[in-house]
Amino acid sequence: MTEFKAAMELIEQTPAVVVDVGRTAANIERMAAMAREGKVKLRPHIKTHKMVPIARMQIAAGAAGITVAKLGEAEVMAGGGITDILVAYPIVGASNLDRLMSLAERAKVSIALDSLEVARPIAAAAHARGLEIPVLLEIDTGLHRLGVLQESAIALAKQIGALRGLRFAGIFTHEGQAYTVSGPDGLRNSTLEAAQIMAEVAELVRSAGLNVETVSMGSSASARFAIGQPGLTEFRPGTYVFNDRTQVAQGAAAPENCAAAVIATVISHPRDGEVIIDAGSKSLTSDRMIVSQSRHSYGALVSDESIEVVRLHEEHGVLKTNGATLKVGDRVAVLPNHICPVINLHDRVFVFDGDEFVGTWAVDARGRSQ
Amino acid sequence: MTEFKAAMELIEQTPAVVVDVGRTAANIERMAAMAREGKVKLRPHIKTHKMVPIARMQIAAGAAGITVAKLGEAEVMAGGGITDILVAYPIVGASNLDRLMSLAERAKVSIALDSLEVARPIAAAAHARGLEIPVLLEIDTGLHRLGVLQESAIALAKQIGALRGLRFAGIFTHEGQAYTVSGPDGLRNSTLEAAQIMAEVAELVRSAGLNVETVSMGSSASARFAIGQPGLTEFRPGTYVFNDRTQVAQGAAAPENCAAAVIATVISHPRDGEVIIDAGSKSLTSDRMIVSQSRHSYGALVSDESIEVVRLHEEHGVLKTNGATLKVGDRVAVLPNHICPVINLHDRVFVFDGDEFVGTWAVDARGRSQ
Repeated sequence: MTEFKAAMELIEQTPAVVVDVGRTAANIERMAAMAREGKVKLRPHIKTHKMVPIARMQIAAGAAGITVAKLGEAEVMAGGGITDILVAYPIVGASNLDRLMSLAERAKVSIALDSLEVARPIAAAAHARGLEIPVLLEIDTGLHRLGVLQESAIALAKQIGALRGLRFAGIFTHEGQAYTVSGPDGLRNSTLEAAQIMAEVAELVRSAGLNVETVSMGSSASARFAIGQPGLTEFRPGTYVFNDRTQVAQGAAAPENCAAAVIATVISHPRDGEVIIDAGSKSLTSDRMIVSQSRHSYGALVSDESIEVVRLHEEHGVLKTNGATLKVGDRVAVLPNHICPVINLHDRVFVFDGDEFVGTWAVDARGRSQ
Repeated sequence: MTEFKAAMELIEQTPAVVVDVGRTAANIERMAAMAREGKVKLRPHIKTHKMVPIARMQIAAGAAGITVAKLGEAEVMAGGGITDILVAYPIVGASNLDRLMSLAERAKVSIALDSLEVARPIAAAAHARGLEIPVLLEIDTGLHRLGVLQESAIALAKQIGALRGLRFAGIFTHEGQAYTVSGPDGLRNSTLEAAQIMAEVAELVRSAGLNVETVSMGSSASARFAIGQPGLTEFRPGTYVFNDRTQVAQGAAAPENCAAAVIATVISHPRDGEVIIDAGSKSLTSDRMIVSQSRHSYGALVSDESIEVVRLHEEHGVLKTNGATLKVGDRVAVLPNHICPVINLHDRVFVFDGDEFVGTWAVDARGRSQ
């Protein structure tokens, strides 16, 4: 286990993100094996890493394609040679329609949406260009973000299925509510409930005469419970590629599966029991833990999870040392609560394979929220 | 008052940051006037905007120089022609020493620090290059982040003053604790207390035979109480240039002084009372309000502060509509809780002067946390 010691010594400028590519590859392979055994297609969400080389590793390990949230991410990934892309986000607005059509002309693009207001203009634009874009209907299985409820699904599926320019391809959910329940039992029950809703909706929509080729769920924490459930055909985990404190707290990863951390430097030791590090909210984000435990800290040392970032300013983190000796100039590796938005704050990451420095990789789709 | 209506219509891709340059100029002039009347030098912190053109506006309005946190910000600003820069951050590590020395050879650079461990290597490096860098000693006036307490200040000031390569120039604090107290009275009392500590420390250090040329405080919310206090020579506000929900809640700005907002698009109306917008934590940050009110929302509409972003995912915001009619495709302007880290998430901002589109400006020092 590296614990990022080589990175702590070799990286000159902090704060910086270190990625262990060996651990990343192992995480990718572990999820790929789970999908193979569970007989579902894997379509990882690249929002976590936003890096073309890692998307390629996922494809090489057997992923059927990738998932993105934003068109900007899709454009970067298509430019990097990824050819099968689900844009899991309602595409709205004239200029975004143009971008979607351009993308659909050069890659195998599918979309997800939850309303006719979104579907109709896309269908019209696609039809005008002679395209037929596969579409997944988003179902709300309990997160209460996007998606329609079970009772509205059939009618909407039929209406979408009737639009020229779109091809109704199935149903889609993000069972993110599984993150809000404590403990593996709650997580499992919440996941199984979502999977059951999806199976029921799929049957209902099929009984209305529509072809439901894809039944897609996805979140890293729920993978071990969802994959293999009846009716599920596709899974879209994101965070598993690196993992983070939340995944560990959810029992979805062990500390040694965490493949990314923020290397920081101690810049002050102003009083007993606390040191100040040079990573603040502009490096670690202000994201709290979603699960209840440790809600009030912003990260913990990889080497000792009892040493937590207890307060956070934009460029300062306050580390409660819990008896450890840390002095000005010392390096620490911080495991963030939530790795996805952390990567989005950094232009590049420092890639190591154990103690060996591999190189710096650009975060290709950083900031592509449009 | 524009309420960013032209931006809502003209900007094609969302989420996007809009800046009203007229309001920005008025905010800059208002603070500059306060400093002139209070007979203090103004040294704005550029962490809020990170843009060379806005730093130039601040200098043109009479600022003596700028404040930055990180060397990367200083390098960008020096490259943009800003010549008087306080790096208000302990510089630690060999490669950072090199960067600081290079910077000090091409701009008038001063630094702030709070320990001999930080001061000694800088002094040695500066002396070796024939430089003498002005240094401010950071005092903890209640934030409990960096800084030494009053009782340690004299001894440390003397030790720093004795180092060749450094010139002891005065004392420095960030009275950020003023943000944590509720209401203008609490804010005023907290600020006055910090100002009094600084005046006392300045006198103590002077009585020990050191020259205290600079007594520097700074935070936008406390400006109206701190500026003009006895002994204060310099003030370093940051957020005032744009303002945000926190500044309004602190009584430091009116809603019409808010010069930046995030333009977002409604992408779904999944249930009564809520719509989903395309701005999530990757555009708005997860920063809560520091003051107690509204702690649980992540932003509010500029046009109606009762319409709040009540939940936040990475690329989704859940807007509680509070009776307003919002439909898919509608644009909204969201006033963030804390504008500084929001700007840091965006590569560029869309600049308007009232209803007139001025152009896009790069966020020159975005992501320069090193």
